[in-house]
Amino acid sequence: MGDRKYQVRFNPNNVTVEAGEGDNLLDVARKSGVAITASCGGEGVCGTCRVVIEKGDVDNLPGMQLDSAEIAKGVRLACQCLVKGDLSVAVPEASRMAAAAERRALVTAEEVMAVTGWKHDPPIFKLALELVPPTMEDNSSDLNRLERELAKHGIDHYQIELGFLERLPHVVRDGKWKVTVTILKEMAGPRLTAIEPGDTRAKLTSLAFDIGTTGVRGELLDLNKERVLSRGVEYNGQRSYGDDVISRIAYCNKPDGMAKLQQAVVATLNKLIAEMTERAEVPAGDISYITIAANTTMIQLLLGIDPKYLRLAPYVPTASVLPPLPAHKLGIEVAEHVYLYTIPSVASYIGGDIVSGLVGTGIYQRQETVLYIDIGTNGETVVGNADWMVSASCSAGPAFEGGGISCGMLATDGAIEGFQLDAKTKQPILTTIGGAKPRGICGAGLIGIVSGLLTAGIINQKGKFQNEAHNRIRTGSEGLEYLLAPAGETRVSKDIVITEVDIDNLIRAKAAMYAGYQTLLKGIGLTFNDLDKVIIAGTFGSHLDIEEAITIGLMPEIDRTKFFFVGNGSLLGARLSSFSTELIEAGRRVARMVTNIELSENRDFMHHYVASMFLPHTESALFPEASRRLNELSKGGIS
Amino acid sequence: MGDRKYQVRFNPNNVTVEAGEGDNLLDVARKSGVAITASCGGEGVCGTCRVVIEKGDVDNLPGMQLDSAEIAKGVRLACQCLVKGDLSVAVPEASRMAAAAERRALVTAEEVMAVTGWKHDPPIFKLALELVPPTMEDNSSDLNRLERELAKHGIDHYQIELGFLERLPHVVRDGKWKVTVTILKEMAGPRLTAIEPGDTRAKLTSLAFDIGTTGVRGELLDLNKERVLSRGVEYNGQRSYGDDVISRIAYCNKPDGMAKLQQAVVATLNKLIAEMTERAEVPAGDISYITIAANTTMIQLLLGIDPKYLRLAPYVPTASVLPPLPAHKLGIEVAEHVYLYTIPSVASYIGGDIVSGLVGTGIYQRQETVLYIDIGTNGETVVGNADWMVSASCSAGPAFEGGGISCGMLATDGAIEGFQLDAKTKQPILTTIGGAKPRGICGAGLIGIVSGLLTAGIINQKGKFQNEAHNRIRTGSEGLEYLLAPAGETRVSKDIVITEVDIDNLIRAKAAMYAGYQTLLKGIGLTFNDLDKVIIAGTFGSHLDIEEAITIGLMPEIDRTKFFFVGNGSLLGARLSSFSTELIEAGRRVARMVTNIELSENRDFMHHYVASMFLPHTESALFPEASRRLNELSKGGIS
Repeated sequence: MGDRKYQVRFNPNNVTVEAGEGDNLLDVARKSGVAITASCGGEGVCGTCRVVIEKGDVDNLPGMQLDSAEIAKGVRLACQCLVKGDLSVAVPEASRMAAAAERRALVTAEEVMAVTGWKHDPPIFKLALELVPPTMEDNSSDLNRLERELAKHGIDHYQIELGFLERLPHVVRDGKWKVTVTILKEMAGPRLTAIEPGDTRAKLTSLAFDIGTTGVRGELLDLNKERVLSRGVEYNGQRSYGDDVISRIAYCNKPDGMAKLQQAVVATLNKLIAEMTERAEVPAGDISYITIAANTTMIQLLLGIDPKYLRLAPYVPTASVLPPLPAHKLGIEVAEHVYLYTIPSVASYIGGDIVSGLVGTGIYQRQETVLYIDIGTNGETVVGNADWMVSASCSAGPAFEGGGISCGMLATDGAIEGFQLDAKTKQPILTTIGGAKPRGICGAGLIGIVSGLLTAGIINQKGKFQNEAHNRIRTGSEGLEYLLAPAGETRVSKDIVITEVDIDNLIRAKAAMYAGYQTLLKGIGLTFNDLDKVIIAGTFGSHLDIEEAITIGLMPEIDRTKFFFVGNGSLLGARLSSFSTELIEAGRRVARMVTNIELSENRDFMHHYVASMFLPHTESALFPEASRRLNELSKGGIS
Repeated sequence: MGDRKYQVRFNPNNVTVEAGEGDNLLDVARKSGVAITASCGGEGVCGTCRVVIEKGDVDNLPGMQLDSAEIAKGVRLACQCLVKGDLSVAVPEASRMAAAAERRALVTAEEVMAVTGWKHDPPIFKLALELVPPTMEDNSSDLNRLERELAKHGIDHYQIELGFLERLPHVVRDGKWKVTVTILKEMAGPRLTAIEPGDTRAKLTSLAFDIGTTGVRGELLDLNKERVLSRGVEYNGQRSYGDDVISRIAYCNKPDGMAKLQQAVVATLNKLIAEMTERAEVPAGDISYITIAANTTMIQLLLGIDPKYLRLAPYVPTASVLPPLPAHKLGIEVAEHVYLYTIPSVASYIGGDIVSGLVGTGIYQRQETVLYIDIGTNGETVVGNADWMVSASCSAGPAFEGGGISCGMLATDGAIEGFQLDAKTKQPILTTIGGAKPRGICGAGLIGIVSGLLTAGIINQKGKFQNEAHNRIRTGSEGLEYLLAPAGETRVSKDIVITEVDIDNLIRAKAAMYAGYQTLLKGIGLTFNDLDKVIIAGTFGSHLDIEEAITIGLMPEIDRTKFFFVGNGSLLGARLSSFSTELIEAGRRVARMVTNIELSENRDFMHHYVASMFLPHTESALFPEASRRLNELSKGGIS
């Protein structure tokens, strides 16, 4: 490597950094905070770190072959480029970290899950109308002239707002009596929301959001073409007021607490809207409609409805099915005529995010019996099919999101997500998100580590370290711990470890989830083997290794081919509900249909929970193969 | 009279003034701007200036006898009281000038006009509901619990606002699951507007307004009891931006012009709301609904809808039938859940005020053919019955409201409203509104004066002074004029006169009105004698002497018993529409049913107009009796 220094500029991040001759471009990007995906860790084999060299020259290492059309456009793998001059590098959306996480969430193809029975019929549509210009003989009102044309389309009664009327006289004349009216289908009938001069039917843009307690994910949609124009993800701005829904509800008791939470999430939405519209080069003013899927607390906080009764028995939400509401009234930076629809909830802890997932994955249409699982701080489980559904939710605690774990972190860049022991050296091989040096452990990593340690006999089925089992076991400030990475091999300059307390937290979390499914199934007289499918939703779910999840007893031991990952099912349902009114109706039907079982005071649940506090489970018959393997291991020792 | 000075306080005006010993209390009130009615001019005979002496002592002049119960309560006639100490004087609503004007407007009994066929069924109603409290087994949402009860009343679909949802969780618990829901009937279905804890059905209060270009009149209504709780009248705050609708529309072209006009009329409404609620001791928060009748320009300005196309051919309003709109959005100081309904209009110059009058007077239900006339700066005429109606409007100019007249003024305190010549002295005897010394001439007074001068031969049928006819004719700055009151006999310290130019203005105004009726009737093949009734609406109409109006040719010469005065027909219709949804539906039907004829480019109208520029008319056959009298007069001279 020479001593010469070059300027490397990354677009659209607008970051310029200095790099030395021969520096690896992927490393340069990472050091400068430009998050480029590299699933293989920079080995030049996965192709996820594609960038476009817009200006300047690079040396190429031999990696995966790109096709000649791509090469001609300047496409390269960042991990295989060495800097040899000033550069301008474009990072395409597909290679950016957030987008990559999203794509990864869809590894198991929404196509598999999305039932194709619904027709293209967005809840908002446009009519291009040609009004009869007024004369002295026929000088009835502008609205009356509009009504005459609307009647030809079967629209006789409608809701209308003052803003529409204010624009009406100008728009009809600007458009020389040719106008386009945007109409929102509501349960109580159509609502005229916007009017524009001329024929603007080609533009019909909406937003879909999944508002999670931790992260907010959005999509900008072209409703005509059923296309995602751009995506975005941001942390929920409410995080600084508490990590989980309970602490946020508690924060509402403080002066202006609810207003602060409301403003925080609105600010997050506004940031996403700005990012997504800029990225897709769509003016924010083109947005006609918003669909939101979120848990019940997030919905009530967004709308400024006091959530306090959600956490007081008998846990009653204010409303399950809400009408579309004007978004700008909440502070969302869209045109005044934009309405926001929230996917209905079942109960205080079975929210619109779950209903959205049930709709998005088509469970509501299926004859087969499906177990739908959304794993997070709160774990929601639904079992059922087109005819019946039963739900339950339990508080798993934050372990699955890396919370309450000594070296825990969210599933972002640098999080350990994979763990293996080298067959020869018995030393751990860690895989991190993004492939860089580790910064901590995410939920999926935690499961991988615990599964690995268990399989290797380093911990026992109670999650306790077998002191003599491994040279990396040591005593730390919280008791026994296992050294995953010494400080020098990390990006945080401290040892990354997993402690017995961490393992115990994970066991409690997985026990709550498993006891939840058990209670639910037992309540309706089914066993795990009666299930045709298990659909795992949530961003966490998409990092999960199913074998490891079974090994620790988080997932039931059944035919592996029955497991499907749907990624963010909530956002998927919100998107599909934006494309078809049928799915909105389905959401309302599902919300009414699901019977929720409260686990918090359920004796069966407590019994199952205690029985699940073992790896994989105290009842080995439930996990015959996993138990058998562990049994063999304990007989044969580490091999 | 002594030199001692006392403090006199008037309530509820909150005015305190200094008065000398022995000063007449009515004069003291007037000098301090406290408007007390005194129909007899302070002679102690009419009893309209009743006040209550709350504290202090007065000397009493011998006047009309009050009954002993009243005397015991401190009631006195202000005109018969002489100050003899510090006083606190209450002016009851009935004695206040505005209220008096309102009462006078109803001289000819709305009972005569109001058709009794409609049933009590206000557009807003309350349901007291007892919800099932939630349990762990039945913990569906608050809204769902409400819906279950609403369904029992046949309400399945409804509109609802965020504000309702925000209050919902608190109100249901405050009321221990007993609540009262306020429901607005809209064309598109019911809307849940308010929710209160407990049973509040006994309170159902609304407002009705007539927004005139000049004056705004309001009523606070008890919808349960069909009662007027209080009344109010204020000048329209928009007056400072122009006297008529045309100048206000023109003002909208200025920067912020429309916003200023909107704020001005809202400020007037807010002042009236404050006054009326205080007077009736009803909290403004109890108001559930507002009905507004007004001309099309006033409606568009109130709603912030640019009225510019109203005055450009082909004179197209933005909307005729408007949905109820949230009042607080316009700045009206009522609760957020209060909706405002505007009575529909027919055309740019046949507004909701006219439709309201047609509904309020029951014309829409009658088989007899009625001519409905609303006289003002703009004159509106409708002829028809339950089966058909035709309307026309013409610009009469401001003469009927005292505008454009050298000594003209509005029909308020001190306006000359009556004129006679003393049989012996031939000197004028003037009657003024309130009975005090004259300040100017109102529209009704102008008609009386011109009629009197014509009948006395002081002017001829062209409205020109017969120079030798009277010693009060003189040459002023605008040509010939007639001295009505020398400066010393006035309250304005200058001569009050009527000029030939004034008379000419009145002739143009009455010619426009008369030509309007003629054109309308001729257009449908009727004559004046085919009319069963002539209903004269408007505050101006209620000061009018029908005989004088016929003498000058403003009203057709037909059977005098066919004439009815309805006072403020617009406010009457707004009130009755607040009591019965049927009348709201009738308003929409009437608005659609009326066929409007544009006079501005109508050749018949121009012909009739020119022919009407004579007193009473060039065609003496139309006014046989009036013409005969004038004929006899010209033969016999002044006698």
